[in-house]
Amino acid sequence: MGTSSEVPDIVVGRLPIYLRALTVLEAQGQEIASSHELGQRLGISSAQIRKDLSHFGEFGKQGTGYNVDYLRRQLQRILKVESELEVALIGAGDLGHALAHYDGLNKRGFRITAIFDSDPAKQGEKPCACVIQDTANMAQILREKGYKIAVIAVPAEAAQEVADTCVEAGVKVLLNYAPITLSVPAEIQVQQIDPVVHLQRMTYYL
Amino acid sequence: MGTSSEVPDIVVGRLPIYLRALTVLEAQGQEIASSHELGQRLGISSAQIRKDLSHFGEFGKQGTGYNVDYLRRQLQRILKVESELEVALIGAGDLGHALAHYDGLNKRGFRITAIFDSDPAKQGEKPCACVIQDTANMAQILREKGYKIAVIAVPAEAAQEVADTCVEAGVKVLLNYAPITLSVPAEIQVQQIDPVVHLQRMTYYL
Repeated sequence: MGTSSEVPDIVVGRLPIYLRALTVLEAQGQEIASSHELGQRLGISSAQIRKDLSHFGEFGKQGTGYNVDYLRRQLQRILKVESELEVALIGAGDLGHALAHYDGLNKRGFRITAIFDSDPAKQGEKPCACVIQDTANMAQILREKGYKIAVIAVPAEAAQEVADTCVEAGVKVLLNYAPITLSVPAEIQVQQIDPVVHLQRMTYYL
Repeated sequence: MGTSSEVPDIVVGRLPIYLRALTVLEAQGQEIASSHELGQRLGISSAQIRKDLSHFGEFGKQGTGYNVDYLRRQLQRILKVESELEVALIGAGDLGHALAHYDGLNKRGFRITAIFDSDPAKQGEKPCACVIQDTANMAQILREKGYKIAVIAVPAEAAQEVADTCVEAGVKVLLNYAPITLSVPAEIQVQQIDPVVHLQRMTYYL
């Protein structure tokens, strides 16, 4: 990974925000954007944006702004979403269905190509281009197809076991919607989405 | 707010995680938990947990661990979720429906008591205890009922206008699921949930 392994995680965390903003600007037909303009859109200082991007090279000349299309493609490359990445979704409840229907994933580098649920009543349903399969077959399918990314949308009680199975099957990136803290090996990337955690950290300030 | 206004935001952000873990421990019948045990569950050092909690008082005696029920109730008080808080949900698409059905909100301090959607075909539906109402009536209802918390689950194009309406109507806390960065006054709390941002900050490491 060269120097990129030294980039602070908090900087990496802002890159997808920059990429999202650049994608919007490009869709609007804008060709050049200054760090100042990006910063105003994102509530981030222009100095911070320039410093973050400088970890990865030289993307613009002083005073001329960034070429929107070029910087967008560079960020896609850095974030490994130049070509579409396949995602396995585990859990086909309300949230799983919402994720399966969500076209925002496809547009931004990810495609759900396998869905698993332990409920026989759901197996065989087709909420998107793929059919819901039995969780019992998950380990084999994840391994055979070489899935590196999984989204966990099962109840809290089932989430750790699902995560363990994913990791054993070679998954490296887990997005966890279950409201528990997963225990995984250090080399596995985990992020959690728990709306209650987000709400409570804000209600503190009420 | 006294000294609490000086607590770093990153510390505030960990409190809901501690509260969640304590709620699980209590449901399992555990009465006492050490910072070491909590830390192991959460992947956070015990020193960090003790330091975080020390911002808010003295919750345990050296060597005896925390009283699970007491600490849980204190964190609920600190995070203002002792009694249920009412939440307005804007957007009744797939994600809005999933949120309306999600009992994890109710169990942890929040109840969706108003839902709005601009689609006449959805208005009148009842995905939970409340009926989907016309977004055109949102400002008036938010203001009259005094909503302080709103969840935005509308498409990106509509999100800024919805946020503006919420803020004008007195909402102080916004949880935004739309994939754009909202522009709001500094005194408004905003958090965003965008699964693609979470995925991309992990695929960087692939």
